[in-house]
Amino acid sequence: MVAGLVPFQGGEPVSLIKGKTLPEGGGEDVVARAAAMVKDSIQRFSASNGGEVIGVGIGSPGPLNRASGLVLETPNLGWTNFPLRDLVSNLTNLPATLDNDANCATYGEWWQGAGKDAHILVGLTLGTGIGGGLVVDGEIQHGASDAAGEFGHMTIDTTGRKCKCGNYGCLEAYASGPNIAARAVEGLGAGVESVLTDLVDGSLEEITAATVYEAVVLGDAFAHEVMRETAKVLGVGIANLINALNPDAVVIAGGVTRAGEHLFEPLNKEVRRRAFRSAVQACRILPAALPETAGVIGAAGVFKKETFGAI
Amino acid sequence: MVAGLVPFQGGEPVSLIKGKTLPEGGGEDVVARAAAMVKDSIQRFSASNGGEVIGVGIGSPGPLNRASGLVLETPNLGWTNFPLRDLVSNLTNLPATLDNDANCATYGEWWQGAGKDAHILVGLTLGTGIGGGLVVDGEIQHGASDAAGEFGHMTIDTTGRKCKCGNYGCLEAYASGPNIAARAVEGLGAGVESVLTDLVDGSLEEITAATVYEAVVLGDAFAHEVMRETAKVLGVGIANLINALNPDAVVIAGGVTRAGEHLFEPLNKEVRRRAFRSAVQACRILPAALPETAGVIGAAGVFKKETFGAI
Repeated sequence: MVAGLVPFQGGEPVSLIKGKTLPEGGGEDVVARAAAMVKDSIQRFSASNGGEVIGVGIGSPGPLNRASGLVLETPNLGWTNFPLRDLVSNLTNLPATLDNDANCATYGEWWQGAGKDAHILVGLTLGTGIGGGLVVDGEIQHGASDAAGEFGHMTIDTTGRKCKCGNYGCLEAYASGPNIAARAVEGLGAGVESVLTDLVDGSLEEITAATVYEAVVLGDAFAHEVMRETAKVLGVGIANLINALNPDAVVIAGGVTRAGEHLFEPLNKEVRRRAFRSAVQACRILPAALPETAGVIGAAGVFKKETFGAI
Repeated sequence: MVAGLVPFQGGEPVSLIKGKTLPEGGGEDVVARAAAMVKDSIQRFSASNGGEVIGVGIGSPGPLNRASGLVLETPNLGWTNFPLRDLVSNLTNLPATLDNDANCATYGEWWQGAGKDAHILVGLTLGTGIGGGLVVDGEIQHGASDAAGEFGHMTIDTTGRKCKCGNYGCLEAYASGPNIAARAVEGLGAGVESVLTDLVDGSLEEITAATVYEAVVLGDAFAHEVMRETAKVLGVGIANLINALNPDAVVIAGGVTRAGEHLFEPLNKEVRRRAFRSAVQACRILPAALPETAGVIGAAGVFKKETFGAI
């Protein structure tokens, strides 16, 4: 969890505080600690500066219902119809808004980051899962039931890898952090030689996407192959989004973007191969400019937009 | 090609005229015949009624540039940077607008058809290829370079069937009319027994998607299998669009919808399997209400919208 204060006119968040989610204790416990983080952040800010805090923008995993402020279900947190918005609002004594975390991250990149001038912005956040967001003319596209932007569960291989969602061949089943690591471990289990084994002293279960990135930097051939496969798969997903939506920018956030050209070169190649030329030419594919803070900035932006009608 | 007159306030097109495109004679020849069809349609209308005709809305395969009225390229027609809009305008002495044919069909279904009340409407037109369109709050989403809506070239199987576009595993490579027929012929070539062989007197090359439909109605097991596979593949593509866009309606046009429940039952099953529940619940998946005329109605609607700002 991250809390921070975003200036009304935009700009870097201040008084940033990070904390573990620790969902095991239940939703009320998570909310109590989240609200404490918000209050702590406000206190630090007040001590040094003393401006007015007008509200709380919350970004949460979904699906959720914005009108009622409920998180409908989150497999990772175990919440069902959880009144997150009003609980936070009550505990902080501030008005609050609720939106999907990946929507907030995309909105943050649109407001102040890599997608600043984009008319049609597609955002992808690669982490434990793959979240997505779509901002058109400065408006987050929520869809008919606040469920739009689930790009991670786009099928790119009908009979492909099993996804945590129960389906086969989702983009997320290849390119989320845990799945990048899992594909590496599978290769090593099949007997491939790689520096990856040494990096974790033989404990393959400790391999993460970051370990794969580390091995790429060390010039390891197998890690390069895992990265290339990740890039190709992301290229397929992004080509699908480009063919469908013809955006002028796609912004990718997440640790995997640290791989730089090891990621973007094969990714762009796959996009050029699979998407229409005029659509590819119209689109920049960029790493996030605000990898640590886009979510906080975007959540605050959503509060401002919903409360004042403009940003 | 189809030409017809659409009442300004909407309603059934009158004086409908159909003609073969016959692209072999070149673009100028096609345009000359298209313009003659428009004039013929106007003449028939004037003879019986005598209202004023204010302009021509053109729907064409793309990609195209709406601002300049150019068709950038159409592999099927062999056109490159072809000034379709102005040629038609000059030959008919009427102002004209140009939009993508699948956009027009989706817009027609939104204006007067199965997507009438939809806030977010996804349209799919299954024919020689698979065209798509997206209408949000009554506005066709054209994207950054008029290339949005190419749902037919969504990859659903990275190593799947070769598509005419050069890629592998596009939705169109399975579910366009010619590809439905090709999959049937491949099965028959592999020795499957089916009434399909009899329906074309053994000339397998004469099998079309309509023949497959005919065999389905006759209860043929193999034709059913081909139809089920078509439905599943369409279900995957539609699930991807539902996860990405969370529309409240998806309208499917094309001969294959005549298969009714043989298509929609397995299609809906695949959608429920692959798309988020709250998004599936918010979405109706419907056959087109105006299969013959949505394109003409929508093209006229685009002219009205672009000329008067509203519809």
